[in-house]
Amino acid sequence: MSTFNVELKKVVDDSYEIEIGYGLEQKLMDDLKAGLVGKINKFVVVTDSIVKDICAEKIYKMLLDNGFKSDIVVFPEGEKSKTRQTKEYVEDTMLSKGYRRDCCIIAVGGGVVTDLAGFVAGTYGRGIPFINYATTLLAAADASVGGKTAVDTPLATNLIGLFNQPKKVYLDIATWKTLPQRQVSSGLAETIKHACLSSREFFDYLKENIEKIMEIDDEACCHIASENCKTKYQVVMKDERESGLREILNLGHTVGRAIETVSDYRLLHGEALSIGLVAEVRLARSFGYCSDTDVEEVTELLKRAKLPVAIPDYIDREQLVKKLYTDKKVRDGKLRFVLQKGIGDIMVFDNESYAKPVTEEDARKIIMEME
Amino acid sequence: MSTFNVELKKVVDDSYEIEIGYGLEQKLMDDLKAGLVGKINKFVVVTDSIVKDICAEKIYKMLLDNGFKSDIVVFPEGEKSKTRQTKEYVEDTMLSKGYRRDCCIIAVGGGVVTDLAGFVAGTYGRGIPFINYATTLLAAADASVGGKTAVDTPLATNLIGLFNQPKKVYLDIATWKTLPQRQVSSGLAETIKHACLSSREFFDYLKENIEKIMEIDDEACCHIASENCKTKYQVVMKDERESGLREILNLGHTVGRAIETVSDYRLLHGEALSIGLVAEVRLARSFGYCSDTDVEEVTELLKRAKLPVAIPDYIDREQLVKKLYTDKKVRDGKLRFVLQKGIGDIMVFDNESYAKPVTEEDARKIIMEME
Repeated sequence: MSTFNVELKKVVDDSYEIEIGYGLEQKLMDDLKAGLVGKINKFVVVTDSIVKDICAEKIYKMLLDNGFKSDIVVFPEGEKSKTRQTKEYVEDTMLSKGYRRDCCIIAVGGGVVTDLAGFVAGTYGRGIPFINYATTLLAAADASVGGKTAVDTPLATNLIGLFNQPKKVYLDIATWKTLPQRQVSSGLAETIKHACLSSREFFDYLKENIEKIMEIDDEACCHIASENCKTKYQVVMKDERESGLREILNLGHTVGRAIETVSDYRLLHGEALSIGLVAEVRLARSFGYCSDTDVEEVTELLKRAKLPVAIPDYIDREQLVKKLYTDKKVRDGKLRFVLQKGIGDIMVFDNESYAKPVTEEDARKIIMEME
Repeated sequence: MSTFNVELKKVVDDSYEIEIGYGLEQKLMDDLKAGLVGKINKFVVVTDSIVKDICAEKIYKMLLDNGFKSDIVVFPEGEKSKTRQTKEYVEDTMLSKGYRRDCCIIAVGGGVVTDLAGFVAGTYGRGIPFINYATTLLAAADASVGGKTAVDTPLATNLIGLFNQPKKVYLDIATWKTLPQRQVSSGLAETIKHACLSSREFFDYLKENIEKIMEIDDEACCHIASENCKTKYQVVMKDERESGLREILNLGHTVGRAIETVSDYRLLHGEALSIGLVAEVRLARSFGYCSDTDVEEVTELLKRAKLPVAIPDYIDREQLVKKLYTDKKVRDGKLRFVLQKGIGDIMVFDNESYAKPVTEEDARKIIMEME
């Protein structure tokens, strides 16, 4: 018997820049020409059927005009496309067009596109660079910091994926103006979540400006994009592997993800999250961590953002309770919840844990008592 | 327009140990109980239909006997199983049995099993730990150092995957005795490749001991397992991302991988590699980097290891030439080859490049002139 030691200790630098502004297509071209991804001159634009016409095709054509080899891969929009099958489709299209390891993916779209394209990039040729050009408020809040990429499977959302950092992120506010009201509201759910867990001041800003934001006022939108990045960054920087602190970003998501799946994606992610935030602030109240006023304030702000705060009639609540167990935070078969401490802070439990084990009975009670 | 910097610089330690010996099942249990993967007590044994009966089921039962939660996932043996579909099957089985992020995969088998299971582990819950229990000579040579995991697609082998380091590797020589002669020979191809590219002394050792090794003499097998680890480690340690030096491990693989695919996996990986090594040492000779004696010595050693050194009749040589372009080293549409410099060393080209651009004409000539 003999042993052999493989020493693999090294410094990894995954730092990148987020650019926030209006109409950043030309800036992207300038960056690529200036060597953002080194000598690479082949770019695959990955997008969905809606964003294609908003700006992805424009970017694809600009890439060609700038002398780069480029192709555009389009899949049907919506969370239902976030599957292993779509990942295969993107991979096979790239392979059939001759792309090898010396290329870069540019994900143009919302969270579904950036999650999926980032995952494709992470396993294509064992890893090629990618750039996120985020076109939705939700992507600005959720997909720009954290490096989380994934697809859904019939049995669980976001469970197959990897941590993969983009080379750069562009948050183009101009594209927000093309979003239907429902998408804007959906995106605001993550923003409100960030305020709930990290900043009373930001929560108050949202209370004052929510209508302006919903009309896509430039200044207000830049401010919330920046605040979203800041909140996520502060959390993610301290805990890239989601072992502890990062779990707080799961606020509202235990119920939210479950209801999103049970609704069979009739609810948008942010809509499901909104209901999840209401359920979980009520759960926090049941343990004495939040007051009645806190519950009202959160519920009221979500309502003003035109988000649902009640469980739709078509949802089977028992099925919803059962679905909670597919949550990633489940440990030893037990449900665990991140819980807010009033507004703008989060509860910390024994051993620096940010998730509290909750009995199925307690969770069921909240769900049954919801509107 | 504003920018936000995401700083993500950190030290990553992926070091691990390789244990070489006879019948290491109990050692594995002892290591798990001693906390090899921390507090994790759920283990999924991933294996193929042949290795299941050799030792994977035994390991699975020992896990249960030791009080761990465990399941065994079995897929049909052979390179044809190394697909995205098999990956999905393993994932779905794990999901349906309730495994979340707090589990560990134990890959028991040859290179196909360790490549596939390591890839599954890398993307399951965005990454769970895995352990390789390698049961073949090929896995000892090829899958124990380097962290390469992947699956094949209809359009290319090993192009979808990621770099993922195991927590520990066990090389169990006892299992080699159960291998059919054809598998032993196939495994020896990677060993001979290592000698060709890094050590005249090791090549001479193989010349002296090849028959003993093929009879699975304990001492000789431990020696070559250790030498294989050493060679790969020296290369991989210096270049984990395969940007430069690591390409030398591709010796023989440009033609080898292509012929493996064109044969539709009638040839085992090592058999295809053997033909690739002959083709590429002849290519090296055509540029004056190897002598006639070098070509003869390499060919002779492969023959004594009962490996094929001629292109089988059923291979369409034109299709083979075309298939060369799916190689990962292809850059700007040009074929690139790693070429040996005599025996035990490798050519270095301009700009510290280890792969030489070769015209299709030159490559075709070699392939057409092969037996």
